[in-house]
Amino acid sequence: MSAVLNARTDGYRVLAQADIIPHLATLTEIAAILGGAPSEWTIRDVADGYINAVYLVDGPKGGICAKQALPWVRYHGESWPLAEDRAFFEASYMRRLDPIVGALAPKLLHFDPVLQFLVIEKLTPHIVLRGGLIEGLRYPKASADVGRYVAQAAFHTSDLGVPFERKFEDIGLFAANRSLLRISVDLIFLDPYQETWRNRFVPELDAWAKAFRDDIELKTAVARHRSAFLSNRQALLHGDLHSGSVMVTEDDTRVIDGEFSTFGPIGFDLGAYAANLILNWYAQGGYDRPADERDSHRQWLLEQVAVLWDSFRHEFVAIWEQNPDTGGDLYPAAHFSGPAGAARLATIRRDYVDAIFADFVAFAAIKMIRRVISYAQIADFGVIEDTKRRAEMQADALAFAREVLKNPGRFTDLGALLDAIPRFEGTGLDPHAKG
Amino acid sequence: MSAVLNARTDGYRVLAQADIIPHLATLTEIAAILGGAPSEWTIRDVADGYINAVYLVDGPKGGICAKQALPWVRYHGESWPLAEDRAFFEASYMRRLDPIVGALAPKLLHFDPVLQFLVIEKLTPHIVLRGGLIEGLRYPKASADVGRYVAQAAFHTSDLGVPFERKFEDIGLFAANRSLLRISVDLIFLDPYQETWRNRFVPELDAWAKAFRDDIELKTAVARHRSAFLSNRQALLHGDLHSGSVMVTEDDTRVIDGEFSTFGPIGFDLGAYAANLILNWYAQGGYDRPADERDSHRQWLLEQVAVLWDSFRHEFVAIWEQNPDTGGDLYPAAHFSGPAGAARLATIRRDYVDAIFADFVAFAAIKMIRRVISYAQIADFGVIEDTKRRAEMQADALAFAREVLKNPGRFTDLGALLDAIPRFEGTGLDPHAKG
Ligand SMILES: Nc1ncnc2c1ncn2[C@@H]1O[C@H](COP(=O)(O)OP(=O)(O)OP(=O)(O)O)[C@@H](O)[C@H]1O
Ligand SMILES: Nc1ncnc2c1ncn2[C@@H]1O[C@H](COP(=O)(O)OP(=O)(O)OP(=O)(O)O)[C@@H](O)[C@H]1O
Repeated sequence: MSAVLNARTDGYRVLAQADIIPHLATLTEIAAILGGAPSEWTIRDVADGYINAVYLVDGPKGGICAKQALPWVRYHGESWPLAEDRAFFEASYMRRLDPIVGALAPKLLHFDPVLQFLVIEKLTPHIVLRGGLIEGLRYPKASADVGRYVAQAAFHTSDLGVPFERKFEDIGLFAANRSLLRISVDLIFLDPYQETWRNRFVPELDAWAKAFRDDIELKTAVARHRSAFLSNRQALLHGDLHSGSVMVTEDDTRVIDGEFSTFGPIGFDLGAYAANLILNWYAQGGYDRPADERDSHRQWLLEQVAVLWDSFRHEFVAIWEQNPDTGGDLYPAAHFSGPAGAARLATIRRDYVDAIFADFVAFAAIKMIRRVISYAQIADFGVIEDTKRRAEMQADALAFAREVLKNPGRFTDLGALLDAIPRFEGTGLDPHAKG
Repeated sequence: MSAVLNARTDGYRVLAQADIIPHLATLTEIAAILGGAPSEWTIRDVADGYINAVYLVDGPKGGICAKQALPWVRYHGESWPLAEDRAFFEASYMRRLDPIVGALAPKLLHFDPVLQFLVIEKLTPHIVLRGGLIEGLRYPKASADVGRYVAQAAFHTSDLGVPFERKFEDIGLFAANRSLLRISVDLIFLDPYQETWRNRFVPELDAWAKAFRDDIELKTAVARHRSAFLSNRQALLHGDLHSGSVMVTEDDTRVIDGEFSTFGPIGFDLGAYAANLILNWYAQGGYDRPADERDSHRQWLLEQVAVLWDSFRHEFVAIWEQNPDTGGDLYPAAHFSGPAGAARLATIRRDYVDAIFADFVAFAAIKMIRRVISYAQIADFGVIEDTKRRAEMQADALAFAREVLKNPGRFTDLGALLDAIPRFEGTGLDPHAKG
């Protein structure tokens, strides 16, 4: 554990819940947002994620969200050390994207690099999208907003939107975000395909997990995308854009929790979000809910995958068309002038977006597998108490993901992807049974 | 110019030739290498490149090479400012690669970050490979050694050879090498396809240059590789590995001048070197030399392209096979164990190297075009005094490069590449004439 603790910024200490209000009282701007006297402020522990300490603090005038990175994984405890500089990367991500995504993210109000402590605009009455999906609630704008968010963030941090000098500045900064990237590499790309203490699948999935560990075609496909994740620095990614990183109301959507931010393929963020919609689709089969309710919710979920993609594509292409000369080094206006240049750019845009689609589909599948086999399981399945039933729903998800990764040529458009999802219902616990 | 000058490290000053010996006399280790008293040392300006001040200093005991980065492009003068931190990146590159490539590069003896001043082992009796090629000399080991150099450097700085944490540390460092990368992006990837004051082609090539500016297929192909150069961070590259960056004797080869170092596709370095062999092949047509001498030298040049590639491929695959578990995140041993894993890894290696071949061929073509149209022309053509004759030889090279970029499917193996080179002799100054 020493290596991590030694890397700690001088002066760092873990704030107890009781320390938070006194500390906030020393921050003039934050005290002004809360209003009144510190004695009137109330605090609530809302850490429902795996990693950090998170509190909501309310005062007579307003509220804030306070978040501190601990020197370990909160959910696991001190035996899993984790560099607390991750709060620095979350703050850096918020600062970099604020002028780009505007109202699609909460504002960063304060960052303390010594305490690795963030104060963020409190989102209210927002709830975490994952919780809403489990309850069968619908958020009409969420998926379209997330699609727009990814499009804006990606375009303006890529070689399309900025000169490489700007991009390399960002790359240099986020290349230092290594502790969390190690978690991504391990939990998403390595653990599901090997035996490790971190894996958390239910025993009923043993045969599936073994089948995945033995499936060399599948591991080869995953390796290709692992390579792209580590080497294709297409744009600045959120890095953990699942439904637990999106807070919603009926008419507002905010992306939170950018501590996993890294440069990578744009399809990775889209895939993470879609994976969680599709996982929720499969999980619905394990919920005790009237069949018509379930079917209509599932139908809605599939529509949201389509909405996500269409919104992304539309926004991304629109930004590109509206910004013909950003100083980006990829397609300088001088090389693509006149009607022939315009026609060619239209083709180039289509090809560029098609390549993102292929990544999107593959990373969605990889993220699905991760949430079933690795550490950091999701509540969508966790709420299904009967573990055999849970495993059956998870097996469906695994079967779908395996097919997507091993036969990408069958999933080159949205229709094919959506049509396939229901076909894997009822796959069963034998990974080798023929459907 | 102010932005660049302001970025200067405090205390920087340009050393005049007369300052060098007194300065070296203050460096105990360097003085010991030179031996005797400073009054016995001799100095010679050997700057034959475009960018830096370079001197050779000899003493009674030994010699050194002293190199200082000036705040401008030496060859062009003060009106083309250039951040002098490039010497830092050259030093960083040498330090990073020293344990990897060993005797294939000279040793870095001293680096002064304030003066951006390097002292390097003096190579003697080495000469710069480009000069040798122009004279028709043959260096039997050079191309095989360069192939091995690229293989070693690439493997051990990629996700095959190191955990991503190590790679991201390097990426963070070299992502700051932006002034020289701007030169690469402009001179290699942008200038040849647009009008700019930096272009330096002879007037006889006007029609060819215009044809390239108007060729949207060609520009699209180049854009794809420009994107890979900026986004595919496969390994640490030398970044400027032409025949002017290789010093040779009959039996020793050293790669110098790593100031353009950056992360990028492995094929880029290989392509740079091959481009200069192929350019020399075309230039030979303009030299007044007996036909049989020329033909046999040309034959030798083609063989060297093959030797380069075969040496790279052989060394790269051998290192990979001998290092099954480097901690690299791409193909962990645990995912590819047993006979099935071994068989699969053999396929993966072949595919990986094939993909490098495709990059190699494309970047070779792109580098050839750059040396004909952009700033920083090469002596291989420069020594042909009759500019029409020079232009004819250059047109052959352009025609070959255009074909390679527009029809990559015809160049998927070494034989096809080598066979094509002679077919473009005598293309002529009309870029649209049918052959
Ligand atoms: N700005 C905010 N306003 C209101 N509530 C918030 C805000 N940010 C976070 N929360 C609440 O705190 C919870 C934990 O926050 P967050 O997801 O950022 O923590 P984390 O520990 O980094 O999670 P993870 O394990 O997913 O990385 C959220 O699920 C949400 O309920
Ligand atoms: N270690 C060395 N020993 C002997 N001579 C050297 C050494 N390094 C460089 N030289 C000589 O100095 C010349 C210039 O060196 P170098 O190529 O490093 O300079 P540069 O200005 O960076 O060139 P470029 O414009 O190609 O970037 C070389 O061509 C070679 O003749």
